Amino acid sequence: MKIWQKNIDSLKEIEQFTIGRDTEFDLLLAPYDVLGSIAHIRMLTKISLISKEELKAISKELKIIFQEIQAGNFQIKEGVEDVHSQIEFLLIERLGDIGKKIHSGRSRNDQVLVDLKLFYRDKVKEIVASAKQLSELLIQLAEKYKGDLMPGYTHTQLAMPSSFGLWFSSFAESLAEDMDMLYAAYQIINKNPLGSAAGYGSSFPLDRTFTTELLGFEDLHHNVINAQNSRGKTEKTLAFALSAIGSTLNRMASDICLFMNQHFQFISFPDELTTGSSIMPHKKNPDVWELVRAKTNQLHAIPNAISLNDTNLTTGYHRDKQLLKEYIFPGIETTLDCLNITHFMLKEIKVQQNILVHEKYQYLFSVEEVNRLVKKGLSFREAYKKVGLDIEKGDFKAKTTLNHSHEGSIGNLCLEEISEKIKSKIKRFDFRKIESSKNDLLQ
Amino acid sequence: MKIWQKNIDSLKEIEQFTIGRDTEFDLLLAPYDVLGSIAHIRMLTKISLISKEELKAISKELKIIFQEIQAGNFQIKEGVEDVHSQIEFLLIERLGDIGKKIHSGRSRNDQVLVDLKLFYRDKVKEIVASAKQLSELLIQLAEKYKGDLMPGYTHTQLAMPSSFGLWFSSFAESLAEDMDMLYAAYQIINKNPLGSAAGYGSSFPLDRTFTTELLGFEDLHHNVINAQNSRGKTEKTLAFALSAIGSTLNRMASDICLFMNQHFQFISFPDELTTGSSIMPHKKNPDVWELVRAKTNQLHAIPNAISLNDTNLTTGYHRDKQLLKEYIFPGIETTLDCLNITHFMLKEIKVQQNILVHEKYQYLFSVEEVNRLVKKGLSFREAYKKVGLDIEKGDFKAKTTLNHSHEGSIGNLCLEEISEKIKSKIKRFDFRKIESSKNDLLQ
Amino acid sequence: MKIWQKNIDSLKEIEQFTIGRDTEFDLLLAPYDVLGSIAHIRMLTKISLISKEELKAISKELKIIFQEIQAGNFQIKEGVEDVHSQIEFLLIERLGDIGKKIHSGRSRNDQVLVDLKLFYRDKVKEIVASAKQLSELLIQLAEKYKGDLMPGYTHTQLAMPSSFGLWFSSFAESLAEDMDMLYAAYQIINKNPLGSAAGYGSSFPLDRTFTTELLGFEDLHHNVINAQNSRGKTEKTLAFALSAIGSTLNRMASDICLFMNQHFQFISFPDELTTGSSIMPHKKNPDVWELVRAKTNQLHAIPNAISLNDTNLTTGYHRDKQLLKEYIFPGIETTLDCLNITHFMLKEIKVQQNILVHEKYQYLFSVEEVNRLVKKGLSFREAYKKVGLDIEKGDFKAKTTLNHSHEGSIGNLCLEEISEKIKSKIKRFDFRKIESSKNDLLQ
Amino acid sequence: MKIWQKNIDSLKEIEQFTIGRDTEFDLLLAPYDVLGSIAHIRMLTKISLISKEELKAISKELKIIFQEIQAGNFQIKEGVEDVHSQIEFLLIERLGDIGKKIHSGRSRNDQVLVDLKLFYRDKVKEIVASAKQLSELLIQLAEKYKGDLMPGYTHTQLAMPSSFGLWFSSFAESLAEDMDMLYAAYQIINKNPLGSAAGYGSSFPLDRTFTTELLGFEDLHHNVINAQNSRGKTEKTLAFALSAIGSTLNRMASDICLFMNQHFQFISFPDELTTGSSIMPHKKNPDVWELVRAKTNQLHAIPNAISLNDTNLTTGYHRDKQLLKEYIFPGIETTLDCLNITHFMLKEIKVQQNILVHEKYQYLFSVEEVNRLVKKGLSFREAYKKVGLDIEKGDFKAKTTLNHSHEGSIGNLCLEEISEKIKSKIKRFDFRKIESSKNDLLQ
Repeated sequence: MKIWQKNIDSLKEIEQFTIGRDTEFDLLLAPYDVLGSIAHIRMLTKISLISKEELKAISKELKIIFQEIQAGNFQIKEGVEDVHSQIEFLLIERLGDIGKKIHSGRSRNDQVLVDLKLFYRDKVKEIVASAKQLSELLIQLAEKYKGDLMPGYTHTQLAMPSSFGLWFSSFAESLAEDMDMLYAAYQIINKNPLGSAAGYGSSFPLDRTFTTELLGFEDLHHNVINAQNSRGKTEKTLAFALSAIGSTLNRMASDICLFMNQHFQFISFPDELTTGSSIMPHKKNPDVWELVRAKTNQLHAIPNAISLNDTNLTTGYHRDKQLLKEYIFPGIETTLDCLNITHFMLKEIKVQQNILVHEKYQYLFSVEEVNRLVKKGLSFREAYKKVGLDIEKGDFKAKTTLNHSHEGSIGNLCLEEISEKIKSKIKRFDFRKIESSKNDLLQ
Repeated sequence: MKIWQKNIDSLKEIEQFTIGRDTEFDLLLAPYDVLGSIAHIRMLTKISLISKEELKAISKELKIIFQEIQAGNFQIKEGVEDVHSQIEFLLIERLGDIGKKIHSGRSRNDQVLVDLKLFYRDKVKEIVASAKQLSELLIQLAEKYKGDLMPGYTHTQLAMPSSFGLWFSSFAESLAEDMDMLYAAYQIINKNPLGSAAGYGSSFPLDRTFTTELLGFEDLHHNVINAQNSRGKTEKTLAFALSAIGSTLNRMASDICLFMNQHFQFISFPDELTTGSSIMPHKKNPDVWELVRAKTNQLHAIPNAISLNDTNLTTGYHRDKQLLKEYIFPGIETTLDCLNITHFMLKEIKVQQNILVHEKYQYLFSVEEVNRLVKKGLSFREAYKKVGLDIEKGDFKAKTTLNHSHEGSIGNLCLEEISEKIKSKIKRFDFRKIESSKNDLLQ
Repeated sequence: MKIWQKNIDSLKEIEQFTIGRDTEFDLLLAPYDVLGSIAHIRMLTKISLISKEELKAISKELKIIFQEIQAGNFQIKEGVEDVHSQIEFLLIERLGDIGKKIHSGRSRNDQVLVDLKLFYRDKVKEIVASAKQLSELLIQLAEKYKGDLMPGYTHTQLAMPSSFGLWFSSFAESLAEDMDMLYAAYQIINKNPLGSAAGYGSSFPLDRTFTTELLGFEDLHHNVINAQNSRGKTEKTLAFALSAIGSTLNRMASDICLFMNQHFQFISFPDELTTGSSIMPHKKNPDVWELVRAKTNQLHAIPNAISLNDTNLTTGYHRDKQLLKEYIFPGIETTLDCLNITHFMLKEIKVQQNILVHEKYQYLFSVEEVNRLVKKGLSFREAYKKVGLDIEKGDFKAKTTLNHSHEGSIGNLCLEEISEKIKSKIKRFDFRKIESSKNDLLQ
Repeated sequence: MKIWQKNIDSLKEIEQFTIGRDTEFDLLLAPYDVLGSIAHIRMLTKISLISKEELKAISKELKIIFQEIQAGNFQIKEGVEDVHSQIEFLLIERLGDIGKKIHSGRSRNDQVLVDLKLFYRDKVKEIVASAKQLSELLIQLAEKYKGDLMPGYTHTQLAMPSSFGLWFSSFAESLAEDMDMLYAAYQIINKNPLGSAAGYGSSFPLDRTFTTELLGFEDLHHNVINAQNSRGKTEKTLAFALSAIGSTLNRMASDICLFMNQHFQFISFPDELTTGSSIMPHKKNPDVWELVRAKTNQLHAIPNAISLNDTNLTTGYHRDKQLLKEYIFPGIETTLDCLNITHFMLKEIKVQQNILVHEKYQYLFSVEEVNRLVKKGLSFREAYKKVGLDIEKGDFKAKTTLNHSHEGSIGNLCLEEISEKIKSKIKRFDFRKIESSKNDLLQ
């Protein structure tokens, strides 16, 4: 009957099943758990639940633990349930009874929420930096190759003249626009859940506005149930933003895999960046790009996985939410990896020149000819007919000079405007506030 | 060989397969197609491709068509391929050769993109209005029931005291925060693609900044490839926002289905709003809420369906994109339906009073007792132990007075702050600009 | 307070929200509802709840209704809730009190489950027929073009010699193997749920084995809860099978869109089957194939949508399940459409001949040369080195004769074995049993 | 220009990005790589590409490597690309030139396909064993608790009498039926891809029928392109089957989380199997069941992730396919974990007795009363009215004796038939053939 007496092994099974990959992920949260705790005890002092002396002692020890974490000298000991317990355990070990005071007025539910939000906030900062670096490179490449024409396709069919400048800068602007979604996620992330305790608040007179300021949050989730329900919502919103970035990179990678095909040969990379075959000299396998394509598809799968995890569940914490980390943590790293490897690869891209001189591309210029006639006074329909007949009779001879002048066209890439868009989209993230909060808490 | 001569039926098969649900959806785009065309020809006049007289004539006719559409007197004739062709056909029928001039400098690719973006913009406006109405009702209900306690659950287990006020307002704040995602979508939507033509621009000296202003867009997709690639991205971003709203409603509906169960009986609705059974008087089936739950799950499925549609495809228009409408158009309506029916139902909700007086809920108050002792000077751990022992010995007697005072807790719902959050989140959408653009184009 | 007295319009809102697309879908279930009812009353007669005379009268009327449905003369009247009510209403209208007896021992829950399973069973039969027709055409095309070589790609890079025969027959075998998944779905579908009533059975001594035989089911869901829970499971399983078929067609459509590109030009279709452009004679837009690609992606989205609908819900009917029809019904039609249009298009496919004679393809044959040397006695590594050096020095001259002889290779397509596989996979579906059951019930 | 000369670190970046989690997964494939290689060289001997002496030497060494793997003494050395290279490297190291002969007539593409299929085959065997163990326990529990009544719910509302016996055995039968899907996956898995080489076959006269027999495959993918395209299809099919099992377990876990709620208290588990709170004695958090629920949702996400990975890609190997392991390998383990922990937990389940004696459940019996009157001769409608009026007047007195007798009802659980179904579903998997093949290859 009493299974825990006769069968200790069995409980190991329970432990193993419930812990999952948490110890691995919890280490990443350790520094944020310290920051959250410092803010919490400062507030407890403000509302007189902890004395100034106690605050001083605990703060000092927490900063030491922070340094140990940074130095890689922190681990979650065998048998300790999670990062929160490990840090509290160290405090009690080093400070005695004073260490036990840190728990008043919070529960692990809001503690982990704070940790996660601080962690995500830093990760968004990293992603923005990587996206910025990549989009700036794309602008540079667009500038460099603005005169190099290539075919534009619709329906995977030759359609109209395009250029490498246009192609590169399309992704720069797309990335800039992806920042809108990331900023929305950042706003959800950057709200203080501390004080929501287990999701129903506390009878202590917590000052949540004070911890909001201390932790550099833009705002708080006022309602404590809503704060608790933000677990899952925060992750899903961030996952949406990662998937948006993923779409931009997936499109680029798909293009590149095609353009490296021998029938196209529009672009190439140094041998060391492709996978070749010593026997088939024509082969330059675009493995990195295939994996960017596949890894961005991993990003697309995450919002849905989170929906499946969270849907149809009622208000309040459920252990299900623990698995959210298994989706979003790797998703963040995948996004960073893809942004960074794309940057790394594009630095070495080689572009084929004079592609459009080949006769097979002449029909790309037929619409130009129609427009030319329209400008000369023919109606669109007449002009269209005339060129069509010329082509049919074999009389069409493409004039390959192009006069595109409007905003965003081959002849007017608006690179400055796009650069400006990147900057203004990124400026909204007020990352300096994060740093100054961190410095303040750790000083 | 010539299959179209010997077998006309077969071509009907092709037509049927390729058209899909487009005629149904295209009707919704008709008014926006007119607006986009008016802006386009004004611009063509500005760059001297159309004379002022021609502009006047075409504008007048387009406004008439707009009125016909509004009056329900517009249809896409049998054999006419799409809404764009139908409107052009009407112009030529009524104006003769002048009507043929409208096509210069655009293709159906950027034309439909404009239509879609204008349509989505109006729909976002509707969604914001519905969300606002619902969140305001939730605030009212929270105010009304702020004194009515109910149990709070974690792990679906009784945990801590909560209240109907807290529960209602949690969804109000959640909806307010969902507006961040909707605003991100709105920013992607609210960018002008006109002038990107088939995705590679035009050799006419189009003035895209001018049409951006005319159509009340906040900005333009500068790069024309990026403009074209925004098909799919726009829909996916909007789908993300709908799914975010869906999460809030799904949680509420899940709660309600549980709270209407006979073991809970926390809330009820008038008989006419539930499905009963004349033989089982205890039955009040929450069909509407089950369908809200299920329909919000439809919303969760859309971002993924769009990812599947779009992923691994190269730059440039593909016919695949036509199917995006089949996902997002019903998704928009489902969101509106769910927001509106939730509002409609909640107006009639009845709340059970005095729930927590029942003895079985007394342990909900145990943490209160611990905190009370801490405030009297015991350390958290001592207090915790004492209450635990009392419970074990059967000596625990819950004091059911609650003193929650911090921001967002039972005793301090911060309804004003949440109301303010709703307002400030919604204020960012500058819908007046849409209306004034419309008025300007149609005057 | 009493909202239903003062405000009738409001209830229309409820009705509209809850009905959804059900009237549209219910019409498709009408004939199956009749068949299920005939089986049910025969069983009720067997257990003496209906007399033989009553059985005769009701059966006769039900067969008339069946004919009316077949003739298109059946509709669900305004105000009647669903197809089940409509049919019962007709019976009572025409037969009086006798008609009221049909309901004993069943509920609408198991009634609709029977209808759905009979409907799906017929649809599986249609899908199998379409898949068979397509795979047979693919075998014919493989036979016809077995001598026409084309490049084989890996990493979208030229790799090894392939042939149109190999390419066509790969899809034939893939479709054959997809029948495994469809057969698994068929087995779940083909189980009798009748008698499970609302999911907890009935106190009448129903003879479920008898209705299993009458309706031609292979087996019954014995456990009545399991029978009820099969709603959703049945749809998901079928959706898996449709997605499997979708993968095969998606791959083929993706290949074709690429092979129709001007850089490849491996295949083409008559003008009437592509979308051209009168001004760009090079353009042959593969719209049908792009839509096959996109529509098969719709199929991939369905299993997930069903998971979202069903997951985290407890045992027993929930109204959520109503929406399953909105996923699977269109999914079935999409599958049939895609199979049939693919067959229709492939009948007209034109294949480019002598592709590999072009010099650019000579390296495709390098591995052949290595193998030739190995057969002459060199070790694999020596042979490999020699050919590599020859290529580097420019001495490599491809011998383009191929001697592939093993099972499933260019030189030995195993078309007979694949044909046999199709037949044997399909034979397991015992569709004759369905027909004889139908005939028996209607005679 | 030559980036690999000046910057070695950079290439580490490429390597790190492309390898991903492959070294971790590849170790699992090691024993299967050996088995596949033994079969391959036996075949090479049969077609005279390897001498009998060479076969003997290589076989002997491969068996030693197999034992080293089993003993945990095998690792993929730093700098060695994958498990295939590591094993070949060991052979060459130990046997010299003879080791180099093993590569003839295959490529890593078909080699890894064989490894995967052998691995999946063994894992299916494990899953079947776990499912069998669980379903047998469910049958035992059903038998034990067949007399213990509980409420049955529809719409989460009290509906009709059910029993624990009915409830337990519903999952037993559901699991049995899930085996249909698993068997379909098994059939796709259990086909030989060896000899397809890089996806276009080989010019060596390979005997693929011979390796099919040696490896105990049921059949072969004849067409070599189809064999290659089976990568992804195999994983998706298996993922479907895991998701099907996941649905059954998710439903059970959802039920249990609800039934453990204090308002229900239908079931409980020993303290050591739940997460309690020393201060809230009422709390028995069902963490294991919440995680079963969440982990089965992970399973539901996999088919979709695979679709995203594979869709819209053309025929032939793409590096994208490498990531399939990241989905399906953890998915297999999650399935096994969930099946095993469910079995482990259910062994200790405690069931509440005499639930339905409480007055609040009396209306559950109203339908019984209606049926009783029908059996006495009243028409269904009259009986229904009478009971309804009695209830309204407060005259209804439930007779709580139940007489359900039909197949699968409370009174006739058909446990023997369900047990038989489990056995017959499982018998189709001919796992003995796998074992005898393994023994034969290793003897």
